[in-house]
Amino acid sequence: MSPASQAATSPSRRVGRRPPGGRGAGLTPAQIVERAIALMDAEGASALTIRRLAGELGVESAALYWHFASKGELCRAVVDTVGARLRIATTTSGAARDRLEHHFVAIREHWREHPSVLELSRQYPPSAAGGVSHAGLALLEEFGIASTDALGCYRSLSWTVTGFVILEQNLASSVHHQRIGPTRWVLTIGDDTNTRSEFDTDDLFRNTLALLLDGLEARRGAPR
Amino acid sequence: MSPASQAATSPSRRVGRRPPGGRGAGLTPAQIVERAIALMDAEGASALTIRRLAGELGVESAALYWHFASKGELCRAVVDTVGARLRIATTTSGAARDRLEHHFVAIREHWREHPSVLELSRQYPPSAAGGVSHAGLALLEEFGIASTDALGCYRSLSWTVTGFVILEQNLASSVHHQRIGPTRWVLTIGDDTNTRSEFDTDDLFRNTLALLLDGLEARRGAPR
Repeated sequence: MSPASQAATSPSRRVGRRPPGGRGAGLTPAQIVERAIALMDAEGASALTIRRLAGELGVESAALYWHFASKGELCRAVVDTVGARLRIATTTSGAARDRLEHHFVAIREHWREHPSVLELSRQYPPSAAGGVSHAGLALLEEFGIASTDALGCYRSLSWTVTGFVILEQNLASSVHHQRIGPTRWVLTIGDDTNTRSEFDTDDLFRNTLALLLDGLEARRGAPR
Repeated sequence: MSPASQAATSPSRRVGRRPPGGRGAGLTPAQIVERAIALMDAEGASALTIRRLAGELGVESAALYWHFASKGELCRAVVDTVGARLRIATTTSGAARDRLEHHFVAIREHWREHPSVLELSRQYPPSAAGGVSHAGLALLEEFGIASTDALGCYRSLSWTVTGFVILEQNLASSVHHQRIGPTRWVLTIGDDTNTRSEFDTDDLFRNTLALLLDGLEARRGAPR
């Protein structure tokens, strides 16, 4: 058995930080984080363990511990990396209302792409979220919402969008919803076929956001 | 050992339906359902097992199985019983906008009182939900929303309210939120104390609902 394959099958998993030059030292933290994001997006937050991730990358767990002291530190890096992308995605130009709409559309798309990171961010505060909120607040003020009202309105919008994404994620495990297209569902309540109705989550999101933005229009230049 | 205490400590738990007259036959289905609701409201959906509930009621599991063929049947009865109460709570008189507001305030209060039933209702469709939706749809039409737009708007509102309640329930386990009052929280993102902000979930709910209702006002008599 070659030294390399011996190392790969070594039963010692808790070896602490290793000096560079060992197996896996060729990996960058960014590569590890990318693989962690891909793993979680495909299989959910519970799939992420240092051991599993090391296996995916073809290295020992020790190689990951050399970059991240704990799973918690890795999770924090995942949340921050994903959050930094959201910040870029919500930056646009155009009329204030269009940019506001785009801001929240981007947030929904972001969490749809990274459903498990939404779960993770409850435990690991996304340090980039402050930047996204500040950009959104500035947009609301530019739109004509009084600065005393802007934070409350931003929170109303972001809670609505986050809640929407959670409900959207839950549809697949709801016994009264049946998927008939990528974003299309049939709802039937109990055995009552009279309650059967179809809806499209893209249309529903657009309608919900339009109602909120119309509500904001009514408050423009009207401090409360 | 008396026959009664022998029965109570009997290791056989899967005895099927028993004829009336055995221990627990004095219980009504309504009493069992009430106790199940109280147990779930206090300890969450996972606390509800037939065995635990029988213990709470001081009877054998068999006494519950005599009324409900399975845990699933009991859960369905819990969801229906709680749902029927919501229907009563959302029935009001007054101006259409006030009644609409009350309708959704009642839905939030309802799920706040029965947080675990919200979880349960994904698996056991609430048969009363159709009635609540119909009442809400009628209110929207009375408010001046075109009938072709009413279902979409009702769904936007009810998703927002349900999502809000889920986020509200999640606050307690979020590491970046700290409770400072019954409905008051401090949010701090990461270590950045500049992002520290306080909010009240009652105010936030009121603001979110007001934005949506203002948005609906803009659509009155304007079919899309």
